[in-house]
Amino acid sequence: MAIRMGIIGFGYMGKWHLNNAPKVENVSVVAAYDIVPERVQAAEEAGLKGFYNLDEFLKEDINLVLVATPNDVHCELACAAMKAGKNVICEKPVAMSLTEVDRMIATAKENNVLFTVHQNRRWDKDFRIVKEIIETRELGNVYAIHSRLHGTRGAMFGWRAEPEHGGGMIYDWGVHFVDQLMWMLGFDAIKSVFCKTVKVKTPEVEDYFFLLLDLKSGAHIQMEVGTWVLNQLPRWMILGDEGTAYVNDFTRNGGIIKVDETVEPEEIVVMTTSGPTRTFAPRGKKEIINKELPDSPADLTEYYANLRDAIDGKCELIVKPEQVRAVFTVLEAAFESAKTGRQIEL
Amino acid sequence: MAIRMGIIGFGYMGKWHLNNAPKVENVSVVAAYDIVPERVQAAEEAGLKGFYNLDEFLKEDINLVLVATPNDVHCELACAAMKAGKNVICEKPVAMSLTEVDRMIATAKENNVLFTVHQNRRWDKDFRIVKEIIETRELGNVYAIHSRLHGTRGAMFGWRAEPEHGGGMIYDWGVHFVDQLMWMLGFDAIKSVFCKTVKVKTPEVEDYFFLLLDLKSGAHIQMEVGTWVLNQLPRWMILGDEGTAYVNDFTRNGGIIKVDETVEPEEIVVMTTSGPTRTFAPRGKKEIINKELPDSPADLTEYYANLRDAIDGKCELIVKPEQVRAVFTVLEAAFESAKTGRQIEL
Repeated sequence: MAIRMGIIGFGYMGKWHLNNAPKVENVSVVAAYDIVPERVQAAEEAGLKGFYNLDEFLKEDINLVLVATPNDVHCELACAAMKAGKNVICEKPVAMSLTEVDRMIATAKENNVLFTVHQNRRWDKDFRIVKEIIETRELGNVYAIHSRLHGTRGAMFGWRAEPEHGGGMIYDWGVHFVDQLMWMLGFDAIKSVFCKTVKVKTPEVEDYFFLLLDLKSGAHIQMEVGTWVLNQLPRWMILGDEGTAYVNDFTRNGGIIKVDETVEPEEIVVMTTSGPTRTFAPRGKKEIINKELPDSPADLTEYYANLRDAIDGKCELIVKPEQVRAVFTVLEAAFESAKTGRQIEL
Repeated sequence: MAIRMGIIGFGYMGKWHLNNAPKVENVSVVAAYDIVPERVQAAEEAGLKGFYNLDEFLKEDINLVLVATPNDVHCELACAAMKAGKNVICEKPVAMSLTEVDRMIATAKENNVLFTVHQNRRWDKDFRIVKEIIETRELGNVYAIHSRLHGTRGAMFGWRAEPEHGGGMIYDWGVHFVDQLMWMLGFDAIKSVFCKTVKVKTPEVEDYFFLLLDLKSGAHIQMEVGTWVLNQLPRWMILGDEGTAYVNDFTRNGGIIKVDETVEPEEIVVMTTSGPTRTFAPRGKKEIINKELPDSPADLTEYYANLRDAIDGKCELIVKPEQVRAVFTVLEAAFESAKTGRQIEL
């Protein structure tokens, strides 16, 4: 079936989808609805049929609606579209509460339409590299994962700085990074959650969080995202008992480090002002093996192609509603932990 | 009073003290006791009076005993020395349980001698730099501290790999790093503890730990020490609302990064394979201010000089028994957390 897509909310991400979804065969964007007249006009200038009224928009000949508004109206708008028989992509985070998430999932079932969320960062190059490294057991048994994103701008943009619209860093990036890890490690992999949030430069929402995810496997995840961490640590560190991988940014910049056990270790002692250390002395250069990161493919158009084929009943959705719900449960636990100072068991 | 020091346990650290304590005026090392005959001979070759018997050693004309044995006999030996009227320096970690720590503190009081622990890493250059940065409020309000030590050797030396002798990374380095932070931030600063331990390359003790210390101030500490983290992150990261400091190793290698708010921010968008980000785009180079780390003095001989003067009643000990006890309480909470998977409230 040809996908005729309509966009609700023709802002930053709405335009992004207009530029990307049609890269896939049999997917076109035909209409847009917004409450801001200038945006409706911008949509019309971009060749779409513009709507100032939701009901009129939903009567249009479209079979997929993308909801790209602030988070606080995702549920209401997605449900309206599903009740009108449209399949729905919702931008992340899916909603403002688990109650809303459940309402959206139920509405999809009742109206026999597909419902998915734009967890686009499952297609980030850096993440695909990490996923390949872990799945091929390149590092043996992985005992810890660092997932970090450090920025210097000290700013959350627009409504992302406003709590009433679902702003804050946990909803903005936490939702992606938790989704990446759960998709890779299993949606039931997390045992407990501890979270610290800070409003460093943004008065009303957290623009920094540290999230510790303790896994049932015994491994753990250190996740740290902040817009005001001026010395950036690598985006990823993967600690395995056969080696360490690091990915510095969103690209293939990084490496895998192993030790050549066949080389006799050099005896080195490091002096500090307060004493020596043998344990933390470096190895000789000959003992270290540096490998390139795998060049894992990462093609976001797969997202739209999958949805198109799922609508045709040819395959399952990659981003499934129950996965979205599982991720949201972790985010709610993170907020609860940050508020109470307590570890939350899942 | 001239300090005449005797060493119990003439191993790696015993020799270290012999080489360092006499750098201070009025401190000399005169005797050593060990249960290993070769070590007694080594002590004699180094010019000390060697003892094969503890009672004989304690009858010697010494007024300070250094206990540098494996951890499991610290309490017994330190108490024997104090009962013989000697002041005592014990190597870290002080003991194997809080019960032992309390016995040692009580024995010091009963015998009216001084008791201290060799928390030498209070004199590490890197730590002194961090302490100065925090105390001068160079970074404004500090909301997170990373204290890390990553090694590549995958080894704990000698008895440090043996649980029955008090081995493991929490006792070996955790005790230093917790002591550093509590001395700097306050011995009652910590609210709760969460800890993960891993036996990556050492069969019987943890050679990796991650310790999350949640502070009453609202800030938190991420502490990670491992002998098998092949891509080393900086020893310290200090995240403040006016800037970030990083110290790469045990030296002054690192910097302070701030932002020049008078420069108009460049508009930059970073593309990733799955979408753009404005929030995590870098700043223009003109906006960034790079500063050198302060050159904070760090002189370990202060440790011995302080003890000498404290024995003379001229000053208080820098490393006080009740501080040692507070640090040990945190270590016990860390072990309990690692064992149970639960956050421990202090």
